[in-house]
Amino acid sequence: MKTVGYAAHSADSELVPYHFERRELRANDVAIEITYCGVCHSDLHTVNGDWGSQPYPLVPGHEIVGIVKSIGTGVNNYKVGDHVAVGCMVDSCQECDQCHHGEEQYCRNGLTGTYGSPDRIDGTTTQGGYSKHIVVREEFVLRIPEKMDTSRAAPILCAGITTFSPLREWNVKPGSRVGVIGLGGLGHMAVKLAVAMGAEVTVISRSKRKEAEAQQLGAKGILASSDEDELTASANAFDLIIDTVPKKHDLNPYMPLLDVDGTLVIVGQIGPLEEVMTYPMVLGRRRIAGSLIGGIEQTQEVLDFCAEHNVYPECELIEIDQINGAFERLAEGDLSHRFVIDMKSLDAD
Amino acid sequence: MKTVGYAAHSADSELVPYHFERRELRANDVAIEITYCGVCHSDLHTVNGDWGSQPYPLVPGHEIVGIVKSIGTGVNNYKVGDHVAVGCMVDSCQECDQCHHGEEQYCRNGLTGTYGSPDRIDGTTTQGGYSKHIVVREEFVLRIPEKMDTSRAAPILCAGITTFSPLREWNVKPGSRVGVIGLGGLGHMAVKLAVAMGAEVTVISRSKRKEAEAQQLGAKGILASSDEDELTASANAFDLIIDTVPKKHDLNPYMPLLDVDGTLVIVGQIGPLEEVMTYPMVLGRRRIAGSLIGGIEQTQEVLDFCAEHNVYPECELIEIDQINGAFERLAEGDLSHRFVIDMKSLDAD
Repeated sequence: MKTVGYAAHSADSELVPYHFERRELRANDVAIEITYCGVCHSDLHTVNGDWGSQPYPLVPGHEIVGIVKSIGTGVNNYKVGDHVAVGCMVDSCQECDQCHHGEEQYCRNGLTGTYGSPDRIDGTTTQGGYSKHIVVREEFVLRIPEKMDTSRAAPILCAGITTFSPLREWNVKPGSRVGVIGLGGLGHMAVKLAVAMGAEVTVISRSKRKEAEAQQLGAKGILASSDEDELTASANAFDLIIDTVPKKHDLNPYMPLLDVDGTLVIVGQIGPLEEVMTYPMVLGRRRIAGSLIGGIEQTQEVLDFCAEHNVYPECELIEIDQINGAFERLAEGDLSHRFVIDMKSLDAD
Repeated sequence: MKTVGYAAHSADSELVPYHFERRELRANDVAIEITYCGVCHSDLHTVNGDWGSQPYPLVPGHEIVGIVKSIGTGVNNYKVGDHVAVGCMVDSCQECDQCHHGEEQYCRNGLTGTYGSPDRIDGTTTQGGYSKHIVVREEFVLRIPEKMDTSRAAPILCAGITTFSPLREWNVKPGSRVGVIGLGGLGHMAVKLAVAMGAEVTVISRSKRKEAEAQQLGAKGILASSDEDELTASANAFDLIIDTVPKKHDLNPYMPLLDVDGTLVIVGQIGPLEEVMTYPMVLGRRRIAGSLIGGIEQTQEVLDFCAEHNVYPECELIEIDQINGAFERLAEGDLSHRFVIDMKSLDAD
């Protein structure tokens, strides 16, 4: 199937229109016409080569919402016209213990990323959602709940599941005390989701500059990590801290904020942390963990959860030809929302 | 009560005989004649001032075994002649949630250490087990099981509970895959206890030099952390790693050895770690935690467990006047056993 997208042709080039072929449908494939695609900071990292060299040309995008256009002969769960979604993975081995219990993100044989990965069958490079169409095996297609606003759903597929999964893993429930470090794409979703689960949520940020914004998202307020007195007064105040900071940083101010047996979960930084002092860990059995997106079953769960609780990412709709400007604003940081590409703006011809 | 012990009079002095008073019995106090006291590396750190300035003169020792000599008027659970023990704590607030659920080591108001802490009632400095007698409130006195060899029990009170507690907290059971980094006082107890719980235990050490020793303790063998090929071949091989290294070190070689959701528990180092890479944490939801000794109930449990499973620390009995030489050997490191002072060697006069 012929399609068109926006691709990077090298680590230092802008995204430009790119005509390419999507594979012919295999028996279990679903062809999707993409209506919206979220813009994740990792799209930028990947096309810039920050995480290693890439197989250019590369079409990024893994927060994909669309409508089923055609289905393979063996597809059972989707039909033409269904509103569907695709997240960060499009395949996994489907045979290991992790796949069997629905955590394909930790597949023993490695997940297949939505873009930049070799397809498990023909070895071609997967291409992402900054495009008119995508073809994905049905096991990795999600269903958009009926009452969901599709124009605001896309970021749930990465920012949503990445924060929802640790909230579930660490059993956040009404009354849980949750801290969220950072208020960007991931952080603002962590706040909304934890609030919808009934938790008492505090944003932890350098200053209180964004306090009104944090409160609008449902947080109690901001704990200013630059204020020693506030930090001291908040010792043991959290059961769980979701740390969305996407660069090397210092965990030492945050660890004493955890209660005994509390956990700080890293979902932002892939790389080094500054030196950690073990003192608060040993003296309070506190923990540091990482977490990667979530499995397919749980990604469906967060979509359903968001539809039910009317939780949506803060989205700024853009046209596809604004993508390079959006990348620049993303690189500058300090956005408390997600860009979402309205794919109507991409001419299929 | 007059007694005698060995005390440090400053951070750079040797331990010397020291005559001092134990308090008169309060209603809930138990007076114990000490028969054995283990020599913990933290005794050395503390008297040397490595962990902050100390209230000298200071009698160290928190692996205490002895016989009840007299009891306060309100003591219900012990009688004269009982074989008993005291560990790292002699008091806590007894009123907070942590004390109420039996984890006095995480007391909200701070535990009272067996030596070097202010007594909660009269404010005097607590003095430890390198002495003829000790007076402890009965809530912090443990019972030595009848069939236990008292001459080898003392190190269970610190090295034993410190490794037993995380093995229980992280639910080690038959078939669990446990790694133990380091084979000193803590490490060798971690191996024996995990083996007794039915786990498959591997020692992780720079070289295989101590492999025969590790196997004698019940481990499968040694994984040499200096061997890149061995590390690679052992990816995902452990559910739990107990890290007993008592100095700043690099966790990065160890984290990929954990399986998905595995935890590395720090029980040795109180201080900084080298920079940690988050990559294996995020990609496998792996965790780093700390753990501090264990509560009184669990300390009784490890004593009972060791008696039942015939698990004993490797002990080298010394006389009290050999303590300064023992400290020197401890400072040099590389001991896979504990010194235990035979308190008969301390003349009460």
